[in-house]
Amino acid sequence: MSSPHLQTYSERAKKHSNKAAKALLEIIEEKKSNLSVSVDVTKSKDFLDIIEAVGPHVCLIKTHIDVLEDFDATVIDRLQELSEKHNFLIFEDRKFADIGSTVVLQYSKGIYKIADWAHITNAHAVPGPSIITGLASVGLPKDRGLILLAEMSSKGALTTGSYTEDAVRMARARRDFVIGFIAQHRMEGIAASDTDNIAEEDFLVLAPGVGLDATGDAMGQQYRTPEQVVFESGCDVIIVGRGIYGKGENVDRTEVVKQAQRYQAAGWEAYKKRVQRT
Amino acid sequence: MSSPHLQTYSERAKKHSNKAAKALLEIIEEKKSNLSVSVDVTKSKDFLDIIEAVGPHVCLIKTHIDVLEDFDATVIDRLQELSEKHNFLIFEDRKFADIGSTVVLQYSKGIYKIADWAHITNAHAVPGPSIITGLASVGLPKDRGLILLAEMSSKGALTTGSYTEDAVRMARARRDFVIGFIAQHRMEGIAASDTDNIAEEDFLVLAPGVGLDATGDAMGQQYRTPEQVVFESGCDVIIVGRGIYGKGENVDRTEVVKQAQRYQAAGWEAYKKRVQRT
Repeated sequence: MSSPHLQTYSERAKKHSNKAAKALLEIIEEKKSNLSVSVDVTKSKDFLDIIEAVGPHVCLIKTHIDVLEDFDATVIDRLQELSEKHNFLIFEDRKFADIGSTVVLQYSKGIYKIADWAHITNAHAVPGPSIITGLASVGLPKDRGLILLAEMSSKGALTTGSYTEDAVRMARARRDFVIGFIAQHRMEGIAASDTDNIAEEDFLVLAPGVGLDATGDAMGQQYRTPEQVVFESGCDVIIVGRGIYGKGENVDRTEVVKQAQRYQAAGWEAYKKRVQRT
Repeated sequence: MSSPHLQTYSERAKKHSNKAAKALLEIIEEKKSNLSVSVDVTKSKDFLDIIEAVGPHVCLIKTHIDVLEDFDATVIDRLQELSEKHNFLIFEDRKFADIGSTVVLQYSKGIYKIADWAHITNAHAVPGPSIITGLASVGLPKDRGLILLAEMSSKGALTTGSYTEDAVRMARARRDFVIGFIAQHRMEGIAASDTDNIAEEDFLVLAPGVGLDATGDAMGQQYRTPEQVVFESGCDVIIVGRGIYGKGENVDRTEVVKQAQRYQAAGWEAYKKRVQRT
């Protein structure tokens, strides 16, 4: 069995046991898009305008729902309508990072009720396995998937060495719910023991910090190209934000669509090159 | 100069340069309470009832504002009124864990506008120094303080070895804003270099997982007593939740007050024993 990233998305979709992961892989193949747009804006109108524009070109919309200043429940209704209309999944980038009993509340309760609408969310591994146990108790009954942060692309991140290995071990122990990683390279087989059945592992790798034009920002974020993350490093989904919608205020729809298509094409080209090289 | 935890809270208050830290130390001394109550409930009425009951007995109220199902802006108004009436600070346990540009938005924007009302918030060190840079750009102009998570008390937490050391180095580099740690022991001098002026370090240590009756829960949380965390380990503030208000629904005010007084007394007794032993 070849490594997951040398198989096609549709081959992997057929084999994946988690429903959110399976759906994401199917959408990627169907829309020929491994592009996720990270919509980090503070006004609901800009938020929905950008999603409406990029919707046809993405497999996944990544949200920070808690930065919307004029949030109300209708934003979620509209987001879900767009998800169905344009066939993309929703990934709330909550970066849960608390103990089990707290993340249960944060995921299911409060104003946002993230588990009710986000097909995928993510968590840091730092609290240990209880964070997965807690989130899975809410998410699995709703067919949700969890992404773990095994690496971060910001300068001086502490996700190094044994940290990454421990995160992968935690994921491997809960493959029913943990569908992959926020990372910059493949994670299968990392820190595996002789008794782990790694041949069946297929962790989706979602790569943030992707840009075609910029190399870094003042807050320590570093950028890599779709070619680098998908072809060279074997990542599955490229996450792009400002590179597509700039400041994100009163966006020029035509320009946003143009940039989304540009990243979609670059990500897909890198994927085709990857699966054809064997 | 003796280690900070062998000095009195009021001695330390006089020397601390961060205004939120100074205020917290003053309140602790004035109210003879190093007790923080963690109010993890999902209904605003329960939330405010508990805070009203424990207010006179605490130095700090720890919130997870995002688990309140019926949150609206009046909850913050009422919380601030209680903070002034009973003289306690507010600590939003947000556990920020994203890159600089994102935490700026999460801290200042959105529905919650945490920076406007939380004297203290916290962050994981895992993204590297950019998380502190980002939060400080919002919080320092408002005289806020930041707590870093250098350890977690949940089973299998990845905050071990070099992780904790790196977190302390990050804090040391930003002592104007980072006022201490969520941890189980003192942090001064950890991973210091010859050129660091550690004699002036005074990191407040806030200890979660404190209980007088329980030893653990099903989600991996482990408990220690006030005597263990304050006297033996030198922590400054004990954080107690369910031990004080149980399930937190339709609470029996008399019982909550009784438990708060019990923890207040235990925490203060452990502190007096600590500063008198030298």
